[in-house]
Amino acid sequence: MTEHTVTSYGEELRNLVRRISEMGGQAERMVAQSVQALINSDWGLAQSVVADDVLLDAAQRELDERAILVIGKRQPMAVDLREIVGAIRISNDLERIGDLAKNIAKRVIAVSEHSQPIQLVRGIEHMAELALDQLKDVLDAYADRDPARAESVRSNDEAIDAMYTSIFRELLTYMMEDPRNITPCTHLLFSAKNIERIGDHATNIAETIYYIRTGEQMPAERPKGDRTPSLTAPRPAVAGAGADATAGE
Amino acid sequence: MTEHTVTSYGEELRNLVRRISEMGGQAERMVAQSVQALINSDWGLAQSVVADDVLLDAAQRELDERAILVIGKRQPMAVDLREIVGAIRISNDLERIGDLAKNIAKRVIAVSEHSQPIQLVRGIEHMAELALDQLKDVLDAYADRDPARAESVRSNDEAIDAMYTSIFRELLTYMMEDPRNITPCTHLLFSAKNIERIGDHATNIAETIYYIRTGEQMPAERPKGDRTPSLTAPRPAVAGAGADATAGE
Repeated sequence: MTEHTVTSYGEELRNLVRRISEMGGQAERMVAQSVQALINSDWGLAQSVVADDVLLDAAQRELDERAILVIGKRQPMAVDLREIVGAIRISNDLERIGDLAKNIAKRVIAVSEHSQPIQLVRGIEHMAELALDQLKDVLDAYADRDPARAESVRSNDEAIDAMYTSIFRELLTYMMEDPRNITPCTHLLFSAKNIERIGDHATNIAETIYYIRTGEQMPAERPKGDRTPSLTAPRPAVAGAGADATAGE
Repeated sequence: MTEHTVTSYGEELRNLVRRISEMGGQAERMVAQSVQALINSDWGLAQSVVADDVLLDAAQRELDERAILVIGKRQPMAVDLREIVGAIRISNDLERIGDLAKNIAKRVIAVSEHSQPIQLVRGIEHMAELALDQLKDVLDAYADRDPARAESVRSNDEAIDAMYTSIFRELLTYMMEDPRNITPCTHLLFSAKNIERIGDHATNIAETIYYIRTGEQMPAERPKGDRTPSLTAPRPAVAGAGADATAGE
């Protein structure tokens, strides 16, 4: 027996918001698990992250479709329209976060063949914790439609960028010490870059929340702390003086 | 003397499409110039790419705003709605392409301190030509709303991914040969990755064009040729046997 259910406009909007929250939870889980898999050389866990990404991609396409149907059917104005457009944007950022987590997971094998020095591993773990905190905070800010909280997520992104710059230098130094480190460190470098980009997507979501609430953009210039594109070679370490790289800044 | 101009709905739609074409032209120019700057160590050209990115970001925000206003004001249905949503998505991809070009441009200094072997440079140039062709083709496909052409852009993405995989291996091998190559090669690696991602965004645009025309998604699974996440270390070159890396595939 089938019933034709008439969904109200309010229900359709709440449905979109609920789907965003579910996608947010999936993205958080994928980020946490991909980094755990990388640190623990856990290929089984890595594979489950890769599989989960397929579901997140499908969820994003479905949300897109539903949002467009709601726009076509209900012809929303003002804040409702911003909610729906905001949901489309946020689901796009969450889908990309999932892709980045998947990309990290795929590198597990190439990294796991070599053991990594403890400070590199701790550095990447710490950076991932910062990025995950940002993701959680911004999803809470979305639940509350809180523009102040969204603004603070955006300003916290600098800390992730600073950590990335420092990990980038450490990895270069480590690669220069021994050619056998180059391949696994290259994968760690890409993984660290992916985590930095996850942080950027959390910031995108923060800007969308601000837009939903206020109808305006956060100011155009957001502080961009990734200075690694201009980093030149670290000077070779003087024995006993530590490997801290300072050249090129 | 001011005149109040009434814009027709048709004009508003054409306006959005025109802005996409302009953004497309800017993105093409930025990609071409960033790679030229990288290959020729042209810091002046690199700086102009960085400056252009600010304009492209502003153009994307403005298109977003206008598109949302049109939706609110005209309450479009069906294909008009897909056109507007499609314009929002495409402008997003073009803005990201601009960011990737800017990121390549910023690496010019770090790369230019060392001369690169000719085959690495040719490899990256060639990959960039493929990506630029894709971008031009997809912008033409958009102008004609041609779904068949969009589909062929998507299947051509494989060639870019294959080139990226091969450049990745070459760069790893080159880094292992001499620690002084590591820093500039790391920047070339990120640049090559950025070019590969520019190709991916061209493919996203192709999928959006298909959606605008048909109302449907291209099939979910698109061929993903980037196998580099699982690449392990190339075996050291045997003297005279060439440096071709095969381990880990």
